[in-house]
Amino acid sequence: MAALMRTRVGIIGGGPAGLLLARLLHREGIDCVVLESRTRAYVEQRQRAGMLEQGTADALRACGAGARLDAEGLVHHGIELRFDGTRHRVDFSRLVGRTVTIYAQTEIVKDLVALQLADGPPLLFEAEAYAIEKPEGSAPRIRFRHEGRERTLDCDWVVGCDGFHGIARGTIPAGLRRTYERDFAYSWLGILAEVPPSSEELVYARGADGFALHSMRSPTVSRLYLQVPNGTDAADWPDERIWDALDARFATGDDWTLRRGPIISKSVTPMRSYVSEPMRYGRLLLAGDAAHIVPPTGAKGLNLAVSDVCLLARAFAHLERTGSEQLLDSYSQLCLERVWQATRFSCDMTTMLHAQPGGGAFEQRLQLARLRRIADSPHAAAELAALYTGLPLGS
Amino acid sequence: MAALMRTRVGIIGGGPAGLLLARLLHREGIDCVVLESRTRAYVEQRQRAGMLEQGTADALRACGAGARLDAEGLVHHGIELRFDGTRHRVDFSRLVGRTVTIYAQTEIVKDLVALQLADGPPLLFEAEAYAIEKPEGSAPRIRFRHEGRERTLDCDWVVGCDGFHGIARGTIPAGLRRTYERDFAYSWLGILAEVPPSSEELVYARGADGFALHSMRSPTVSRLYLQVPNGTDAADWPDERIWDALDARFATGDDWTLRRGPIISKSVTPMRSYVSEPMRYGRLLLAGDAAHIVPPTGAKGLNLAVSDVCLLARAFAHLERTGSEQLLDSYSQLCLERVWQATRFSCDMTTMLHAQPGGGAFEQRLQLARLRRIADSPHAAAELAALYTGLPLGS
Repeated sequence: MAALMRTRVGIIGGGPAGLLLARLLHREGIDCVVLESRTRAYVEQRQRAGMLEQGTADALRACGAGARLDAEGLVHHGIELRFDGTRHRVDFSRLVGRTVTIYAQTEIVKDLVALQLADGPPLLFEAEAYAIEKPEGSAPRIRFRHEGRERTLDCDWVVGCDGFHGIARGTIPAGLRRTYERDFAYSWLGILAEVPPSSEELVYARGADGFALHSMRSPTVSRLYLQVPNGTDAADWPDERIWDALDARFATGDDWTLRRGPIISKSVTPMRSYVSEPMRYGRLLLAGDAAHIVPPTGAKGLNLAVSDVCLLARAFAHLERTGSEQLLDSYSQLCLERVWQATRFSCDMTTMLHAQPGGGAFEQRLQLARLRRIADSPHAAAELAALYTGLPLGS
Repeated sequence: MAALMRTRVGIIGGGPAGLLLARLLHREGIDCVVLESRTRAYVEQRQRAGMLEQGTADALRACGAGARLDAEGLVHHGIELRFDGTRHRVDFSRLVGRTVTIYAQTEIVKDLVALQLADGPPLLFEAEAYAIEKPEGSAPRIRFRHEGRERTLDCDWVVGCDGFHGIARGTIPAGLRRTYERDFAYSWLGILAEVPPSSEELVYARGADGFALHSMRSPTVSRLYLQVPNGTDAADWPDERIWDALDARFATGDDWTLRRGPIISKSVTPMRSYVSEPMRYGRLLLAGDAAHIVPPTGAKGLNLAVSDVCLLARAFAHLERTGSEQLLDSYSQLCLERVWQATRFSCDMTTMLHAQPGGGAFEQRLQLARLRRIADSPHAAAELAALYTGLPLGS
C-alpha cells in the first residue's frame, strides 16, 4: 500500500459502527477505508452490549453478517420486571409484534471483521488516527500512524466511529458544538459466569437495596449486573458477596432460583448520558458513541450506533446515485431525534429501576407506581415494548 | 336540634368530597351528618378545579346531581399540547373511548348543597370540628362549635373530608402515619377573565420560558394559568403583563390568537405533592385533600377526592347490607394504589411541562423528547389519555 492513500469515505474506528458502515457502503459499491487503532484481538474481545433490536439484526443480515447471528442468537419475545416481590412479563410479540435478539457485540465484531478481511474494503488495525484536517472543505484528510510510519488518507468524506474517547468529535470547533450530559450516582458491577442462564429472558429487578439485571451471552454463559455505588472497586466484591446480593435483589415469593457458577470476568462501569450536537461538521460525520452515550439500562448504545450508520449508508447511497447531499444534510437532525428518544428511554429505565442515593421515600413510591403501571396498563407496557425493541429506522 | 347528636357516619367537611359522600350514603339509606366550618356562601364561591373525569361525572349523576352538569358542562374529547412552536391534539375519544367534562367545582358544590338542604341528611355550616375523640374505639365522637355552643356528634364512623389543613389527618397518631412529599420550585398564577375561551379544548403549553394552561369555566369565562416563581406577588403582575406572557407561551406558527378580556380574579398557588398513609385509623377514615394533594397539572385533586368517597360509600353500603367490614378494611390500600398513580401522573405532567429552575439543557431536551413522543406514539398518547380521563374506580 502506498504511503499516500485516498478513498471516498474514510472511517475512523473499527468497532461495530465503523465495520457495519464499511459493509453497507461496500454493498453500494462505495469505496471506503477503515482505520482501527487497536489490534484485531483487542476489538474482538472487548466486552460490550449484547441485545439487538429487530432493526439492528436486520441491518446485520442485510450486509451479509446474519448467518451466525441467526444460528446462535437467542430470540427473545419479552422481558421480566421484578419489584416488590412480584414478577411481571412484558410480552413484546403480543404488544408490538417485535422481538429482540441476544448476540454479543464481540461476536458481531468477529463476523464483520471476517467479512471485511475476506472481500475488502481495506481495514487497517493498529492504525491510529491523530488528526482530521480540513473537514470544513471538500477534501478532508485523516493523518494516522501505522506500522511505525506517519501516513495520510485523503477522503471525500470522513466518518468518526471512534467512540467517546476518539478524536472525531473534538475536531468540530468547540464553539459550534453543544453538549448535554447527566451523570448518575451509581455504577454497574458486571460479571460473566460460566453457568446456564437462570431465566430464558432478561430479568430487570428493582430490589429494595438496588437494581440487578439477569442477562446472558449464550446458553452456557450468564451475564449479570448489580447496582453499586460510584467508585466501587471490584476487588471488594468477592464472588460470594456478588451472588448473595444478586439473590437478594432477584428474590420473589416463588421458587425461582439464581444458578451460581464460576465468575470469569468482573468489572465496574459508571453510568452516564451524553449527547453532542450536531453530528455533522462540513464533511465530517459522527456516528455511535463518538456523538452520544446512554446509560446501559435498556441496552440502547449499540443499537443507536447501528441506526446512525444505517442512516449514513442510506445518505451516501443517495449521494452516489443522485449527486444530492440532501440526506447527508438531514442526517444530524434525523439521528438526533432518535438519539433523544433513546436517551430519554434509557434515563427513564435507569431512574425507575435503581435505588436513588439521597432519593427520599416519595421518589421510591413513584418508582413502584411506575413499575406497577407497566404491569397493569397495556398502553404503558406497549410503549415500553415499542421503545425497547426499537423505533423504526428514520423515525 | 338537641345539643347531643348521634349519627351512623359523621362527615367533617362540606366540600365536594364530604357532600358527595353524604349524598351517596343517603341513597343507600345510611344516616350521616356533615359538619362544615365555613359559611354556605364561602364554600359555594371557593375557586378550585373544574375538570371532571368520566367516573366523577358519573358519580355526580348517580347521586342526583347530574341535571345542571349535563345541561351546562362542556364535554371535551381531547386536549392540545403545545411545544417548540407546534400543536398536537391528544384525542381521548379515539385513543381510549373516554371524555372529560368541564364544570366548575363551585357549581358542583352549589348543586350538592341544594340537594342536601332539600332532603337531608343534615348539613351544618359554620360548624367547626375541633376534636375527634376515641377514633380507635367503636364509638368515636366529634366535638365541634356551632352557633356559639360547644357540641358533640356521636358516631359509629367518622370520615375526614376536611382538606389539607383539617383536623382529621392529625388525629391519627404521628407514629402510625407515614408522609411523602415533594415541593416544586414554581407556582401558578391563575386568572379568571370575562372572555370566551380562545380554544374549545384545554391547551397545555410548554413555552420557552415556562408553562401556560388555557382552560375555561364556561362558554363566556376563560380560566388561564401561568408558571411563575415561588413567592410571586400577584400585585406584580398587572393585566397587560399577564396577557403578554400568556401570548408568548401559547405562540405557534399559525394564526391562533388568545382572546383578552377583563380579569375578574387573580391568585398565586404554590404546587405540592403530598400523601399521608394510611387513610384509615380505627373508625376514622380520610378522603380527598385530607390525605393527599397533587400539583394541579392534570387536574387530579377533585377527581381523587371523588373516587375516594365512591369507594367509601361502596364500603359502607357493603357493611350495611352484610355486616362485613371487609371493604372498609381494604379501603386505604385500594385508595392509595390509585392515589399513587395519580400522584405519579401529576408529577410527570408537571415536570414535563414546566421550565425547571436550575434544570440544565439536558433536562430541557428530555422534556421535549417526552412531548414529541406523545405526539408520535399512539401508545404514549393512549397512556396519557387513559390517565387523564381517569382510571376505572377501584383500580
